[in-house]
Amino acid sequence: AVCAVQGSRMLLVCTCIAAAAAAVTASLIPLIAPMCAAVGLQGKDLNKVSKPPIPEALGVVPAAVYLVAIFSFIPFYFNEHFLPFGDDHQAAFPISKFVEFLSALLCICCMVFLGFADDVLNLPWRAKLVLPTIASLPLLIVYHLNHGSTTVLVPIQLRFILGTALHLSGLYYVFMGMLAVFCTNAINILAGINGVEAGQSFVIALSVLLHNFVQLDGPYSAMHELSIYLLLPFAGVTAALLYYNWFPSRVFVGDTFCYFAGMMFAVVAILCHFSKTVLLFMIPQVFNFVFSVPQLFKIVPCPRHRMPKLNAETGLLEMSYAPFKQEELSSLGRLVIFVARTLRLVHLDEANSQVSNFTIINMLLRWFGPMSEQRLCVYVLLVQVLGSAFAFGVRYKLAGVFYDVVE
Amino acid sequence: AVCAVQGSRMLLVCTCIAAAAAAVTASLIPLIAPMCAAVGLQGKDLNKVSKPPIPEALGVVPAAVYLVAIFSFIPFYFNEHFLPFGDDHQAAFPISKFVEFLSALLCICCMVFLGFADDVLNLPWRAKLVLPTIASLPLLIVYHLNHGSTTVLVPIQLRFILGTALHLSGLYYVFMGMLAVFCTNAINILAGINGVEAGQSFVIALSVLLHNFVQLDGPYSAMHELSIYLLLPFAGVTAALLYYNWFPSRVFVGDTFCYFAGMMFAVVAILCHFSKTVLLFMIPQVFNFVFSVPQLFKIVPCPRHRMPKLNAETGLLEMSYAPFKQEELSSLGRLVIFVARTLRLVHLDEANSQVSNFTIINMLLRWFGPMSEQRLCVYVLLVQVLGSAFAFGVRYKLAGVFYDVVE
Ligand SMILES: [Mg+2]
Ligand SMILES: [Mg+2]
Repeated sequence: AVCAVQGSRMLLVCTCIAAAAAAVTASLIPLIAPMCAAVGLQGKDLNKVSKPPIPEALGVVPAAVYLVAIFSFIPFYFNEHFLPFGDDHQAAFPISKFVEFLSALLCICCMVFLGFADDVLNLPWRAKLVLPTIASLPLLIVYHLNHGSTTVLVPIQLRFILGTALHLSGLYYVFMGMLAVFCTNAINILAGINGVEAGQSFVIALSVLLHNFVQLDGPYSAMHELSIYLLLPFAGVTAALLYYNWFPSRVFVGDTFCYFAGMMFAVVAILCHFSKTVLLFMIPQVFNFVFSVPQLFKIVPCPRHRMPKLNAETGLLEMSYAPFKQEELSSLGRLVIFVARTLRLVHLDEANSQVSNFTIINMLLRWFGPMSEQRLCVYVLLVQVLGSAFAFGVRYKLAGVFYDVVE
Repeated sequence: AVCAVQGSRMLLVCTCIAAAAAAVTASLIPLIAPMCAAVGLQGKDLNKVSKPPIPEALGVVPAAVYLVAIFSFIPFYFNEHFLPFGDDHQAAFPISKFVEFLSALLCICCMVFLGFADDVLNLPWRAKLVLPTIASLPLLIVYHLNHGSTTVLVPIQLRFILGTALHLSGLYYVFMGMLAVFCTNAINILAGINGVEAGQSFVIALSVLLHNFVQLDGPYSAMHELSIYLLLPFAGVTAALLYYNWFPSRVFVGDTFCYFAGMMFAVVAILCHFSKTVLLFMIPQVFNFVFSVPQLFKIVPCPRHRMPKLNAETGLLEMSYAPFKQEELSSLGRLVIFVARTLRLVHLDEANSQVSNFTIINMLLRWFGPMSEQRLCVYVLLVQVLGSAFAFGVRYKLAGVFYDVVE
């Protein structure tokens, strides 16, 4: 009971800090945006007829405010554990909890720095793969320290082959390192229309938070509490950013925000030991990534931009296409296009020898026809919400079909 | 003996990592410099006749490489403490040492991010005072956790008034917070000629390292070992930067490096519990700061730039002046100028109603007359070396005069 009172008091503090962080973000963005524009951190909004220049990389504001918010939360959280100055025994201090906060902040700060550097300098692809791996190292060490399990339960139906549980050991750490790289890049790939980066991150954050709140009474409540403390301020600053990034965008979020949000999810996934659940909430990102692979790996030609194209006459967004030469296409490329077309994931324009780009956004335009940018963003966010609903279904209902015990 | 062997093995690993970090920095700077210049991160080198544009903010390279270097060092350092995967007790893991590394990296990463943001966006002064204070919070918590002393021994001569020791308690934490703010800004103030920011940081780092090596046999060897592990890679990347920043500069270091280097010294000072000794090694910075106060607080007029002025005919640097109106000067301002002039710290040009700027660099020009930029930089670094020699004298010889016991 003492613990519950303590927990709800901390929850109140965290909510207040999250609200304050949202307010500070909302008031700082209009101040920092002209500073960004002044130094050339701006991009054309290609989906508007007038193609106005919009200040770029404004994700730096929520990211910085978020770091300060968690820095401010730490003294509240550990307050009661501090003994008076001069007193000598600190046995009661929950140092492993402190390590969790520090490693989370460190990973996030590194990624924000990387994202901002990418916005300013346009870093090469290699940096975007190597640096997140290195930055996630402290997380993996903390996972190991906190007796993180590297054992994966095998679904009942496969146990006759694999046994009850797979002991992945080191492989599980490779999986978590790859998760960090995947998360930091996944949000960046599902982008290109107003409001979609901040919007999807907001939906994912709320979904994970909902999961955490449901699990607060469960056996792993400490983990889910930590996730709540980390994600509430994130949801706050993201909401403030979304307000300015919503159609018609007054600011662009930049790589800074995409990396920040992605690493945020990787951090709670690893630190709070529910990486598979977080991946479930990122099904649209996973699908979009897998769907993009043929273009990312040049199996199908990939133009510089894959965002939808504005039809200036109708004012609606239409699919964007990748032109290809039939004779230059490998047989694997031909097969990929054939399969994607048969599944109605892409549109093949044989007359002009071009195929619509392999993104979830173009797929929605393929299915529902041209639409306004705002409506398209809402559709993407609905997909994200449906993905979360599906994830909850799998996590809470379907898991019983494959496993005996569900946490 | 086992500990000593282990220590020297780690020292070897750390030296190798430092050397690799220096090499990587040296090879990355020429690649990143044109990227910085391309996006407008460049400044005019005002102390050259042709005022060539020089890529700015290149401190971001050593800073990023430094972070990666320490990230790479951590697994080596903690390697033997990890038990095999699946093994369940981690009692032997030195978690407080891990916390020290994490908090050091977190503070430094935050400051590098702040510095780079400052280089790109030109942040207001308030941010430069508030954010380092917040970022140093985890350090102070770690200091508290590690039973850091907040007691200051009183010099023998004053004990009849103050007693043997002053128990500063909370005040000592305020002192350490201010130390972080001071350090991050001190290097930035003693700047303006080629090579001086990286040069002074290199000299300070070597001085602290020398002190650490001397103290390795002493009672606080663990602290000094940690300082060595943190500072060796720093010395490596700084040497590489200095190579490109030396007269005539091919790159400028930017606020990024100044904040990075400053926070570096604050981190080892606080984490390794020798803040007073580190301040001793920064006597030129302390002097320059105190000397600058009349201008920083507008007691004496302060022009936008206080760096020395190039005489295009002789090719030598001369003092720069701050013009003032006798009647607008407060009586305090008049007193300050009178005292500074009497001490021969500044030159008063009464005919033109101007006074030379209150910096150590102008003071050297006042004493030794106009000289080339390269020679001036060497003079500043000599002052830094003399300062370190004086610091060693105070720390190792003179301390016996004031205290009974010297660690
Ligand atoms: Mg970019
Ligand atoms: Mg600046």
